[in-house]
Amino acid sequence: MKTMYWIALLFMVTFQACINESETPVENEEIVRYASVIKVKPEKLDEYMALHANPWPGVNKMLKQCNIRNYSIYFRDGVLFSYFEYTGKDLEEDMKTMAEDSLTQAWWKLTDPCQEPVKSAEEGVWWAPMEEIYHLD
Amino acid sequence: MKTMYWIALLFMVTFQACINESETPVENEEIVRYASVIKVKPEKLDEYMALHANPWPGVNKMLKQCNIRNYSIYFRDGVLFSYFEYTGKDLEEDMKTMAEDSLTQAWWKLTDPCQEPVKSAEEGVWWAPMEEIYHLD
Repeated sequence: MKTMYWIALLFMVTFQACINESETPVENEEIVRYASVIKVKPEKLDEYMALHANPWPGVNKMLKQCNIRNYSIYFRDGVLFSYFEYTGKDLEEDMKTMAEDSLTQAWWKLTDPCQEPVKSAEEGVWWAPMEEIYHLD
Repeated sequence: MKTMYWIALLFMVTFQACINESETPVENEEIVRYASVIKVKPEKLDEYMALHANPWPGVNKMLKQCNIRNYSIYFRDGVLFSYFEYTGKDLEEDMKTMAEDSLTQAWWKLTDPCQEPVKSAEEGVWWAPMEEIYHLD
């Protein structure tokens, strides 16, 4: 499953770089927005929501350390939508750091079984990237 | 169609107030995040994307004036996902101002025919609200 995250993130990085220009300089820092979707298994929805209502502080800390901020997950009709802003210089490297964190691994071991990639997702991609078609700062 | 926006927004305000605690004080201002979904008609996708690739400055200006910021729209698999942050004190009043703006009305006259509410949307609701189940500042 770790591999899937890797592939998904690499795909997202490439995807974003190719199709949109969401890099916005704010307060001298570059922000890149990432949005993606995944399905949540109906029988696991309650568990997934309970986990995210009380996320592990160490997981949140690792996300911050990896330059992820303003991160929200939304739900409707069996689908999870994720939005976050990346303020670092190397998302690939930061994702590697995150994937090597044992606490994050333990967290994913609980959350992964709740999720299922959307049908249109590329082979091996977990969270499927969405295309930004409009932005207003 | 203006009525539908009204109903949708009122529903969103109520919905957000009931189900999540996304009010986050940042720099002495209250921010409330809103996320919602709607379908885009396949035959209208190109038109919708072209409009949003070059949004009318007056429409953007009105959004800002109505205290909407960091507004993004994403696309995947026939679905549009909208995310924005509201920094005002009265979204209902701001939405009323927006709905009365003739330029915004002209814009909606072009964008509305491109969209179709998701099947699960409440009667009369245009953009269907999503539930925030996780947030990290």
